[in-house]
Amino acid sequence: MTLERILPFTRTLLNDVLTEGDVTIDGTCGNGHDTLFLAKSVGKTGKVYGFDIQKDALESTYQRLLDAEQTAQVILTHASHATVKDVMDPEDIGRVSAAIFNLGYLPGGDKSIVTKPEETLQAVTDMLTLLRSGGLLILVVYPGHPEGKIESEMVTDFASDLSQSDFQVLKYQFINQINEPPYILAISKK
Amino acid sequence: MTLERILPFTRTLLNDVLTEGDVTIDGTCGNGHDTLFLAKSVGKTGKVYGFDIQKDALESTYQRLLDAEQTAQVILTHASHATVKDVMDPEDIGRVSAAIFNLGYLPGGDKSIVTKPEETLQAVTDMLTLLRSGGLLILVVYPGHPEGKIESEMVTDFASDLSQSDFQVLKYQFINQINEPPYILAISKK
Repeated sequence: MTLERILPFTRTLLNDVLTEGDVTIDGTCGNGHDTLFLAKSVGKTGKVYGFDIQKDALESTYQRLLDAEQTAQVILTHASHATVKDVMDPEDIGRVSAAIFNLGYLPGGDKSIVTKPEETLQAVTDMLTLLRSGGLLILVVYPGHPEGKIESEMVTDFASDLSQSDFQVLKYQFINQINEPPYILAISKK
Repeated sequence: MTLERILPFTRTLLNDVLTEGDVTIDGTCGNGHDTLFLAKSVGKTGKVYGFDIQKDALESTYQRLLDAEQTAQVILTHASHATVKDVMDPEDIGRVSAAIFNLGYLPGGDKSIVTKPEETLQAVTDMLTLLRSGGLLILVVYPGHPEGKIESEMVTDFASDLSQSDFQVLKYQFINQINEPPYILAISKK
């Protein structure tokens, strides 16, 4: 057997939690693969809030959604995921089933634009208040470059300090690879 | 959703790799729950080598197998899993699909009898040579007591040094719990 790699395992987790009509967040649209996956999972009656600080990323995300005829349920915002609370419909607060943040740089994009640790912690903190009970926040962290290393340690420390009476926090990591590959922090709200 | 806890996740991994007729190893029978699970998974045409250093553990394992009419495919040995290579049918070398070791003490049993780190590393090393390509070794490590802490660190260091061209090594751990709960090291042979 092959143990489920990082990207497929995020999909397995999302499949376990999502149903039609759910409210979801893609904190870092990147090339839009996760955004499209969320859009299909929640369907036309659901909602996906998508964020990215790179205009190119949002454009390719929008194109991908358009090609798949999945734009109707997606709200794209050209801003950091730290703004999620400002953008969101107030009635969706506390109703989010799943959110996914890829903390790092846009694959194939401008590697000088990275997510900022302080903004990330604020966004993670906000996210946890937005989740419904049983909702899931998936963080894919990239410790393989210097800023990513700092960010991954800050986020992992933060997550490991969350109260176990309020959250489950799972770390899913391949530990024998060189170049510090990405790993998953999955936070489920009780 | 509830993220899959340690015991259920070991079962998920075993279900993914096992089919009827497979050769398997339970390195630490304990109360026999895993032994019975393996026995049912591989069926009468398969094989389960079961080990425990506590006689009581083997007796309750045997009783559990007997009650479920699953003794035929199980070879129980009252010895450390470090002896696995001596006990095994030579034709099964390199044919093992899955092995599971609970590194710690028998739940509810004599807590002064723990697995020894040196024996554990030897057994893990041996196990990796016994696995077939695609075979899986699951280590459930218990860092919550002093000997377990030392053992878990030794085993985790060992596993993280395995070559990524030969093995995938996954660590599956809940990181926000007090009292250092057990975690999984899953080693898949390429």
